[in-house]
Amino acid sequence: MRFDIVTLFPEFFTSPLKTSLLGRAVEKQIATVNLINPRDFATDKHKRVDDEPYGGGVGMLLKPEPIFAAVESLPILPRREIILMSPQGKPLNQETLLELSQNYEQLIMICGHYEGVDDRIRQHLIDREISLGDFVLTCGEIPALALLNGVVRLRPGTVGKEESLKAESFEEGLLDYPQYTRPAVFRDWEVPEVLRSGNHAAIAQWRKAQQIEKTRTCRPDLWAVLQNNKEEDSPTGALNL
Amino acid sequence: MRFDIVTLFPEFFTSPLKTSLLGRAVEKQIATVNLINPRDFATDKHKRVDDEPYGGGVGMLLKPEPIFAAVESLPILPRREIILMSPQGKPLNQETLLELSQNYEQLIMICGHYEGVDDRIRQHLIDREISLGDFVLTCGEIPALALLNGVVRLRPGTVGKEESLKAESFEEGLLDYPQYTRPAVFRDWEVPEVLRSGNHAAIAQWRKAQQIEKTRTCRPDLWAVLQNNKEEDSPTGALNL
Repeated sequence: MRFDIVTLFPEFFTSPLKTSLLGRAVEKQIATVNLINPRDFATDKHKRVDDEPYGGGVGMLLKPEPIFAAVESLPILPRREIILMSPQGKPLNQETLLELSQNYEQLIMICGHYEGVDDRIRQHLIDREISLGDFVLTCGEIPALALLNGVVRLRPGTVGKEESLKAESFEEGLLDYPQYTRPAVFRDWEVPEVLRSGNHAAIAQWRKAQQIEKTRTCRPDLWAVLQNNKEEDSPTGALNL
Repeated sequence: MRFDIVTLFPEFFTSPLKTSLLGRAVEKQIATVNLINPRDFATDKHKRVDDEPYGGGVGMLLKPEPIFAAVESLPILPRREIILMSPQGKPLNQETLLELSQNYEQLIMICGHYEGVDDRIRQHLIDREISLGDFVLTCGEIPALALLNGVVRLRPGTVGKEESLKAESFEEGLLDYPQYTRPAVFRDWEVPEVLRSGNHAAIAQWRKAQQIEKTRTCRPDLWAVLQNNKEEDSPTGALNL
């Protein structure tokens, strides 16, 4: 899978692309990551990529020409998607990561910077706008890195035995159950006995109960979605978790 | 403000900490970032930091001892918070970033890896658990970087004139309005005339209308929250946006 990252700060990515999962995926050519700098496509003598907003306001905006030119210089693979990383986009979730990992050969990610981008980029260049969440960062580079990591880990061959794609958070809309490893006792804190019992049915039951309890108390929003879905599935309205 | 990042992959942070806003904040000593590797606190001869989960299951968990030892080796500033970055935590939002930037001198961020961390870390070591959103990444390093960036940019002296803290997304629970910069016409696409009119009242009105329309259509969830808040404020139930 090919990733093109349109960024004013390609040097940001140097060490993250060499480390851990992303490093391995790049080395094994599961992911090809190409960094492209709009500044190289600025046409004026000052290589200007930003300018003041029309109508007044503080901060600088990314100009349209260098971004369009950078994206248009890229090769076009058959199934590709151009994504703007911006707080105005659709909040990223696991469903989107799955869909992107399965349906595309090429993802082009445009990293906003400063106050944002000229809206003509949003209207006429991109296919979709994705937000990391309801908070503001100074750059789109961190969201692009998150998207890259989340998509690459879903590609075949990326994840080793240390990680896993099974039994993971959000698979069923529930938070994960608590997990424990050795030592069985650490500073008077014991691993719950059931997990050491070898009774697989009891362990599965305990884990499911923990997931439900944790989701209900920590994430009533996720819990509500789950209950609504269940009610739709079952005309009697009975919950059967 | 001091940030301690507990990470198995300190090398991940090399280039992001040198780039753009974070690079400047570190250089100007607005932020001090200390990287600490739990592997240096592993006591067995193989420097082992992970082990299999009790009760079965795929993937490896981070063991408690090296994480506790790493955190306990750190200096203790008066107002500090120990944060675990994990998909089970409270989803990050702008309010949390503001609160963290104002109330603490030291933030310790523990980056999970592999399948997760031994739950005793969550129960007995940390103050809170923060999630970047409802999706799975292979590591807590990217969420830690997002938190660091989002907090640092709210500290006095960090943000230059290119960026701005004013008129930003989520300030009033609305998405940002579209922005435009030069050229006034790019490939037949014109900047809306009102923004070039110099009529400040008309511009303000246009921008607010755009914010409302964009939030209603792109983020009905944010819009619903805003409407509920308005109804609570006004006993007649009249919306007054």
